[in-house]
Amino acid sequence: MPKYDKYVGFQVNSPDTYKSFHKQEFDVKPFGDNDVEVKIEACGVCSSDVHTISGGWGDQKFPLAVGHEIVGRVIRVGPKVTLAKEGMRVGVGAQSWSCLECRQCKNDNETYCPRQMDTYGAVWPDTGIVTQGGYSSHVRTHEYWTYPIPDAIPSASAAPMLCAGITTYSPLVRNGCGPGKKVAIVGLGGLGHFGVLWAKALGAETWAISRSHSKEADAKKMGADGFLATQDKGWNEAHKMTFDLIVSTANSFGEGFDMAAYLALLDVHGKWISVGLPEEATLQIKPQDFMANGCLIGASHLGSRREMLDMLKLAADKKIDSWVESVPISAENLAKTIERLEKNDVRYRFTMVDYDKEFGA
Amino acid sequence: MPKYDKYVGFQVNSPDTYKSFHKQEFDVKPFGDNDVEVKIEACGVCSSDVHTISGGWGDQKFPLAVGHEIVGRVIRVGPKVTLAKEGMRVGVGAQSWSCLECRQCKNDNETYCPRQMDTYGAVWPDTGIVTQGGYSSHVRTHEYWTYPIPDAIPSASAAPMLCAGITTYSPLVRNGCGPGKKVAIVGLGGLGHFGVLWAKALGAETWAISRSHSKEADAKKMGADGFLATQDKGWNEAHKMTFDLIVSTANSFGEGFDMAAYLALLDVHGKWISVGLPEEATLQIKPQDFMANGCLIGASHLGSRREMLDMLKLAADKKIDSWVESVPISAENLAKTIERLEKNDVRYRFTMVDYDKEFGA
Repeated sequence: MPKYDKYVGFQVNSPDTYKSFHKQEFDVKPFGDNDVEVKIEACGVCSSDVHTISGGWGDQKFPLAVGHEIVGRVIRVGPKVTLAKEGMRVGVGAQSWSCLECRQCKNDNETYCPRQMDTYGAVWPDTGIVTQGGYSSHVRTHEYWTYPIPDAIPSASAAPMLCAGITTYSPLVRNGCGPGKKVAIVGLGGLGHFGVLWAKALGAETWAISRSHSKEADAKKMGADGFLATQDKGWNEAHKMTFDLIVSTANSFGEGFDMAAYLALLDVHGKWISVGLPEEATLQIKPQDFMANGCLIGASHLGSRREMLDMLKLAADKKIDSWVESVPISAENLAKTIERLEKNDVRYRFTMVDYDKEFGA
Repeated sequence: MPKYDKYVGFQVNSPDTYKSFHKQEFDVKPFGDNDVEVKIEACGVCSSDVHTISGGWGDQKFPLAVGHEIVGRVIRVGPKVTLAKEGMRVGVGAQSWSCLECRQCKNDNETYCPRQMDTYGAVWPDTGIVTQGGYSSHVRTHEYWTYPIPDAIPSASAAPMLCAGITTYSPLVRNGCGPGKKVAIVGLGGLGHFGVLWAKALGAETWAISRSHSKEADAKKMGADGFLATQDKGWNEAHKMTFDLIVSTANSFGEGFDMAAYLALLDVHGKWISVGLPEEATLQIKPQDFMANGCLIGASHLGSRREMLDMLKLAADKKIDSWVESVPISAENLAKTIERLEKNDVRYRFTMVDYDKEFGA
């Protein structure tokens, strides 16, 4: 039996006990010529982590350490690595591999490569080793998916940008968010708060749309020029056919989600882009709902390396701070954090920190 | 009571008797300074006509003469008219008025003007007179919605271009159809056959997608480079992530309509544009279906005056002939034609002709 390097991390052993985190050793893929080894300092807690360990997105490989908003120091690089070096602080996001050879990969669309691999829960075809995420001591990944973090951004603030940040940044820049555009962000959670921060930083007239007014003051602090609460009667009336772009982070399309009311906000050929991935969701849409303005709906998946670097530069240049609550990593704290996330008791993202105390310096 | 001019046309008196056409007089709006009076020569028969008179699209104003693919001669113009003159052969499509003052109207988006009016079934606010369509002796309309028909295009061939033609032409040109693009047209009926003709004429690699192979030979004659039949097992496998644009003329999203299979055909950020308007249709879409390629779905409504003129020029320059079956207009023939349309017994459009015989020279 081959002997692999081992890391240690907080794994979940089964979806039935997904709030029980066990500090365990796991095998790591052989170190490749383009690989980078990162000692982790911080990791954001993403709703994807919960969907995955709870089985909400279907079968997964267990035991599994999740976490794909990773910041740490490079401690080793493969002989062919040019994009990272020892001592560099880097981020690792939700994707950790693609072929880099296909049309999509060569076109800054590596997040749409049919052969892409996730940072956790994916299987390396040659060894069968399952990729493990950032609730761990280290992560080993291909250099292309490590991003230098500008000095101006603290690790706890940078971490959630690696997934929540890029997930909202990419559809904004790909769909023309900028000066002269009117842009709405639907839902003000971990994703949505970045949506507001980026849209404003990119120069658009930025509106937040939420169910109630409870987050209105926060949204304005983040830079929102306006705020709409869908519980208000006739909430969309004054804004029909005025938005160029809506990025929706909504995590539920069930009862009370009135798609037609959102689409009516869009200007001719305006776009509604979903970045939320509800577990059980089917959008019900009538072609008639698109007809009055010829609008479009779509989805977006993460963002390219180029966009990741641009986003980090924007955050550093404009001194954009994520709204994070830092939590020292431990089995107990992970359980508590997941519970609070499930209750939406977070404004607006958790980052696990103090890795040295748990995994050694 | 005011006295209005009168035309005569084949009206339906109620949705309960929608295949009974009655030759009746009806009131016409007062002749405006920008109005054009057209003696009708030919009118295409559109599925919209059936949806309207049968009540499938909801309540309508009866009695009503439908028909919105009209070609005829200008016999009178208002004092301010500059776009038409007496003796000119012009077309009139499905839209006959918009404000021409709003942002949409000034932006070649008059088909998305919130105050637009349809060629038939709309109510003039000042008089209460209901607009009547082209199963009639004449039509009176604002000059902006009359389009000179190039000499090269016979009236029976030009007529269906005014609705079915522009409905497919606009989403093609607005979404980049041209050389180097791979474009699919879903459904090969009246709309779809124009989709294939235009996509090919615009220089795209053109594919037709139909349920069976029964129309494959026709599609190839229209210029399709390829043909896919959705009844074939794994019909989309060889073409996943290769199409830039799909224009769907599908008239049903029920049983057997596999939206995910269509969306999988699209390249990254490719678009699926619906121009069909089923009576009872709700698209069921999971955000996950958009995720692998970040594709978009939308709809399109008719096309602008500018696009109408471009389309007619393209048809004249490239000698594009509509595939029409000409039928002399009469109450009996209209009933038969509607029945055949309901059975899809048409390849690919009916045009009612011989107006002189029915309405006088």
